[in-house]
Amino acid sequence: MRHLLDTKTLAREDALRILDVAEDMRDTQSREVKKLPTLRGKTVVNLFFEDSTRTRISFEAAAKRLSADVINFSAKGSSVSKGESLQDTAQTLQAMGADAVVIRHGASGAPHTLATSGWISAGVLNAGDGTHEHPTQALLDAFTIRRRLFADDSRGRDLTGVRVTIVGDVLHSRVARSNVWLLTTLGARVTLVAPPTLVPQDVSAWPVQVTYDLDEAISAGPDAIMMLRIQLERMNAAYFPTEREYSRRWGLDAGRMAALPDGSIVLHPGPMNRGLEISADAADSPRSTVLEQVANGVSVRMAALYLLLAGERDTSNAEEEAR
Amino acid sequence: MRHLLDTKTLAREDALRILDVAEDMRDTQSREVKKLPTLRGKTVVNLFFEDSTRTRISFEAAAKRLSADVINFSAKGSSVSKGESLQDTAQTLQAMGADAVVIRHGASGAPHTLATSGWISAGVLNAGDGTHEHPTQALLDAFTIRRRLFADDSRGRDLTGVRVTIVGDVLHSRVARSNVWLLTTLGARVTLVAPPTLVPQDVSAWPVQVTYDLDEAISAGPDAIMMLRIQLERMNAAYFPTEREYSRRWGLDAGRMAALPDGSIVLHPGPMNRGLEISADAADSPRSTVLEQVANGVSVRMAALYLLLAGERDTSNAEEEAR
Amino acid sequence: MRHLLDTKTLAREDALRILDVAEDMRDTQSREVKKLPTLRGKTVVNLFFEDSTRTRISFEAAAKRLSADVINFSAKGSSVSKGESLQDTAQTLQAMGADAVVIRHGASGAPHTLATSGWISAGVLNAGDGTHEHPTQALLDAFTIRRRLFADDSRGRDLTGVRVTIVGDVLHSRVARSNVWLLTTLGARVTLVAPPTLVPQDVSAWPVQVTYDLDEAISAGPDAIMMLRIQLERMNAAYFPTEREYSRRWGLDAGRMAALPDGSIVLHPGPMNRGLEISADAADSPRSTVLEQVANGVSVRMAALYLLLAGERDTSNAEEEAR
Repeated sequence: MRHLLDTKTLAREDALRILDVAEDMRDTQSREVKKLPTLRGKTVVNLFFEDSTRTRISFEAAAKRLSADVINFSAKGSSVSKGESLQDTAQTLQAMGADAVVIRHGASGAPHTLATSGWISAGVLNAGDGTHEHPTQALLDAFTIRRRLFADDSRGRDLTGVRVTIVGDVLHSRVARSNVWLLTTLGARVTLVAPPTLVPQDVSAWPVQVTYDLDEAISAGPDAIMMLRIQLERMNAAYFPTEREYSRRWGLDAGRMAALPDGSIVLHPGPMNRGLEISADAADSPRSTVLEQVANGVSVRMAALYLLLAGERDTSNAEEEAR
Repeated sequence: MRHLLDTKTLAREDALRILDVAEDMRDTQSREVKKLPTLRGKTVVNLFFEDSTRTRISFEAAAKRLSADVINFSAKGSSVSKGESLQDTAQTLQAMGADAVVIRHGASGAPHTLATSGWISAGVLNAGDGTHEHPTQALLDAFTIRRRLFADDSRGRDLTGVRVTIVGDVLHSRVARSNVWLLTTLGARVTLVAPPTLVPQDVSAWPVQVTYDLDEAISAGPDAIMMLRIQLERMNAAYFPTEREYSRRWGLDAGRMAALPDGSIVLHPGPMNRGLEISADAADSPRSTVLEQVANGVSVRMAALYLLLAGERDTSNAEEEAR
Repeated sequence: MRHLLDTKTLAREDALRILDVAEDMRDTQSREVKKLPTLRGKTVVNLFFEDSTRTRISFEAAAKRLSADVINFSAKGSSVSKGESLQDTAQTLQAMGADAVVIRHGASGAPHTLATSGWISAGVLNAGDGTHEHPTQALLDAFTIRRRLFADDSRGRDLTGVRVTIVGDVLHSRVARSNVWLLTTLGARVTLVAPPTLVPQDVSAWPVQVTYDLDEAISAGPDAIMMLRIQLERMNAAYFPTEREYSRRWGLDAGRMAALPDGSIVLHPGPMNRGLEISADAADSPRSTVLEQVANGVSVRMAALYLLLAGERDTSNAEEEAR
């Protein structure tokens, strides 16, 4: 793998490889010394044009556990605000010796541009671009679903037959998009539930079922239900009437929790708006995987960094050893 | 020790243990290579809801000298400003594998909530909460007093019989509160000097003497005098008339320096307002311990991190070796 | 070397030593593991009173490749904005055990004050002060010119006979000043080209030729031409009429590129205003060294940190080994 840009074009075998390596990484995190020497001497740059402390520190923790050097580059106060182009910024990081660039950008497609422009040879990891994709989020979600539903023997498995329901502001959500593509690639069946105003116009081209009725979707008996975060800044009359109305119709509360099948799980990408899209009961229920998702996020990002930065070397070593 | 939340409930033996380990840490800082491998593979998160560059970099330097990985989490631009609760933030850091959380928060009691809520298993270090406590500051102050007054044979000693005078804005000072409790626990006798408007209402319940007259306090012959920082943003008519008036009545100047006993020392938590609560002469005098306090702060924080993160392991190793 | 404050007083032999050590550093950057153990246990503080992400991360990458611990101290939100003096800030960093302070400051002379005040014993590196100097930029420029013009056998050489033309806002440019002094020390001949309003008043005391006419300067056949960045915030009627006018008279475009001698090179300190002081063609031409300058910047800063922090120890080791 050279880059990790989206899940739409991610091959099934590459996705499974990331998930399986993430299992190995997860095993190392329960050791006394969690640090691996794998990426010693490598430099990972977090190039964040949008603030996202959670995602940034998850990548930072992942890189440091692999012994890489991490440099945080926030667009605030940088040359970027003086009008420097993405090209010049990228080439500068490349020239300084960055081995991987983790990029978060408000414009959909910026990571793809960075990776395919020829400006840099570093590996590019998309940490969220506009309303486009957030592939490591979808990978950590798939990892979490696989571990929970198939328990100990999940390595190598895909999600064939698993039914996942995604609920909320699908229109603006890169998390929803990345999940739809990855889950479908892995064999799962996806249902979207959203207010009519928050369903994308082109949804008929997506490999999903769509409904506006959360109770109907729950009665269909999903194996996993993923509640999307409502961006409070988008909450205005144009999309839905009031927070209370949203919560009543599309929030996950105790009654809906009780209606979910035994053994089903609840995902949320965080940070949660407790009492809005998810009740405190649901958030803290044993079925909730919110904190496992966060922990798995570090393992999945370690796997992605490893495969982008050490994968080839590792292969060649393995070949040498085989001789 | 599981956490370091305050000095009010810190047992005498735990306080002395921190001070003694800090002596060991201080010895390592004069070596050619100052770095110890002790906390390799551990992750320390600086969770700062209030800006404090000095305290943050002191903890950062301490953690790095022990080979821990450090992740800085500033509340600005984080999910916190999107309304995320302390609970969700804490659980997220826990899930990412934080071994210790150094927290600075504007609300008194936030570190205690974090440590006792059951949300996290990581060690919690209070780096200043509201007007409540700032325990590592008090520990570094006690460490500095002990070293200066008892010179070479200070290990194991407490501060029995030592007289300490604390001067300034006691009302708003978590530094003053943490010092009062710790110094008293260690056997010292504390006198507070403050303008009448800056004395806490409940001071009669504190184990201290109180006076409004700095010259009277100095004539009593303290062994150490600690000048608190005046927060210029609080300087308005409600508390005292003018800077000049404050400086004249409660500032440490050359005349008052001359009136202090031989061998007495001058502390200040920094940053100093030279010419306001302390004159430049006093600040730069050989009796001033301001810079030693800063240096000792790194040693004391190394000791606290060590005892929270490696203490138990160390004990069990020692037991194994003893078998 | 104790400090690196300016190029005006930098001795020829010290400049050449930095350039030669930078060659060694550059060689290590093409290894599989780029990290050297040289500065393990040393602490480098980036003390930035002005934002400059590029320069900060170049120093950060350089220090980390030498295994130093790096602490970033931005003046925003620090005690500095509470009115703390440079003296107290510096002494605090010293007390915390900083071995080197990389300082960027809006006031010309601040690094010199820091180094000569007696406040600290740490090595001081000037990363740009006011309109005064930016010595590591000039060193990386000289390094780039030397490598390009003398190819493989450049170690030990100075720039005798090399003709360098510097074009743009010389008045406000610390980059221009540092280059003038260093290039002259190394034997190069410097020509300045600027709009009349952007020529310093005291330029007659500089060891340079001055012209307002870029085409004339190009027809003289320079070996290297350095285009300065136009600070858009300074672009108002007081200095020159319009961007288009500036670009037409003092910008480097395809026509002027064609008029430059074969083998000549184009430098720019970055970030570039493409289409203003330099056309996209010129910026991306094979003669452009913009990205080499960035890469060389890391090598030169590794060399400077090495010579300041490990130089003496290295010497004494060498002496011991010689016995």
